[in-house]
Amino acid sequence: MDQPQEKLYVVKIGGNVLDDEIGLNSFLSLFAAMEEKKILVHGGGNLATQLAEKLGIEQTLVDGRRITDAQTLEIVTMVYAGSINKSIVAKLIAKGCPAFGLCGADGSLIMAHKRIHQSIEYGFVGDVDSVNSRLIDTLLKSDQVLVIAPITSDGKGQLLNTNADTIAQEIAKAMSQIYAVELIYSFEKEGVLMDITDENSVLETLTPSLYAELKSTQKIFAGMIPKLDNAFSALDAGVKKVIIGKAGSIDLLIQGKKGTRIIQDGK
Amino acid sequence: MDQPQEKLYVVKIGGNVLDDEIGLNSFLSLFAAMEEKKILVHGGGNLATQLAEKLGIEQTLVDGRRITDAQTLEIVTMVYAGSINKSIVAKLIAKGCPAFGLCGADGSLIMAHKRIHQSIEYGFVGDVDSVNSRLIDTLLKSDQVLVIAPITSDGKGQLLNTNADTIAQEIAKAMSQIYAVELIYSFEKEGVLMDITDENSVLETLTPSLYAELKSTQKIFAGMIPKLDNAFSALDAGVKKVIIGKAGSIDLLIQGKKGTRIIQDGK
Repeated sequence: MDQPQEKLYVVKIGGNVLDDEIGLNSFLSLFAAMEEKKILVHGGGNLATQLAEKLGIEQTLVDGRRITDAQTLEIVTMVYAGSINKSIVAKLIAKGCPAFGLCGADGSLIMAHKRIHQSIEYGFVGDVDSVNSRLIDTLLKSDQVLVIAPITSDGKGQLLNTNADTIAQEIAKAMSQIYAVELIYSFEKEGVLMDITDENSVLETLTPSLYAELKSTQKIFAGMIPKLDNAFSALDAGVKKVIIGKAGSIDLLIQGKKGTRIIQDGK
Repeated sequence: MDQPQEKLYVVKIGGNVLDDEIGLNSFLSLFAAMEEKKILVHGGGNLATQLAEKLGIEQTLVDGRRITDAQTLEIVTMVYAGSINKSIVAKLIAKGCPAFGLCGADGSLIMAHKRIHQSIEYGFVGDVDSVNSRLIDTLLKSDQVLVIAPITSDGKGQLLNTNADTIAQEIAKAMSQIYAVELIYSFEKEGVLMDITDENSVLETLTPSLYAELKSTQKIFAGMIPKLDNAFSALDAGVKKVIIGKAGSIDLLIQGKKGTRIIQDGK
């Protein structure tokens, strides 16, 4: 029998948690205390929108994705890869967690290309081509806890704004070659809810067949669909578990005591 | 006889070069072409000042050092560790150089403490305590070219704005335990000038005794003194060479054909 793979958690933390200083702090304490190898991928929260407003740069969102013109790219690079990334790193280090912040451009960690879309001009938005799993593994083996901001480059000098859920999923997939990866989408909700207004309506498990049924009867909140598509795609690519739930309960999520577990049918 | 140490260049690039897009681009092409192991430390240029102006945050400089209140810290973290760092990384990667951007906080690369001064309240300005040479060496041995922004942390959750000349010097000193380090301060001038208005008045070499003489007769431009003090301190701590000169001639600086070489007396 093969030697069991070492466990690696890839945790995505959602935007709303970043905007709540107390919530963020308690999440980071729980994250710092997790003993296994781990990677944190963060989005941007409202800070980029706030900075854009102060600078008088109008923001356009299409289906929840920011249209990224050159000025907006400058802002998200500053906010995501600069202030949010480095303040999370400093806070984790203070909690005894050897955090190491970087973005997808660094060391060509995540290569991407500018999104081409038939009808929408997204601007400087990247779709992921590849993940440098060797470099990630080198850093993990040097006992670094990676904190990754969702900015990538196209290898030709252009930075690109890239969806953080997708980055978490692509890293989880790529690292599944080396580690037993569990991918955790943590945000402000208890999990995948059957009723968006009721935090007690958490689905404990979600399989592809149940997901298809819920989608066809429109019982899944539309905003969750990209996240869930990402989750099932990760499972198909060898990620061991995908868990969706509240950032402030990350300890209970990894113990299987809270949140929604995304699993294959018949498991 | 001991095996000769591998060469490592630590290059500091000055602020004015960052503000000149064409000059920066030609510097980065020359830097990318340097075959030895290398680290680039950058300052911030005028971009932080410009952003502060746009946001209506007043900036105070004392002896060329920025007084860093909480809002200014946020700005320099965004500009230095975010936009400047990541745009340099993307440009170097496009030139075939495996650049990896980070700041002093990442992986506790550079630990610092908040400056205490008798009469001036510098705010969130850091003085360097230590350099994690092991982590730097791990990254160099993974063939990464480090691009370092001058933001550090105190280990207690506080980010600190830190002088980039000092960071370059401290990294050069620390890495001298492992490599034959050459420290290059590159900026917009040809070198240490005897006459600040004449680019042809470059001193080819500067020794401690000549430096003392020039200082006592006030023939050294005051703005150069902190840089030169840093340079001699680096030499004393085992750095092989310190070279000061024009960023656009970095190839000639490392060949000894241009710039000022800072050397010990009698060498």
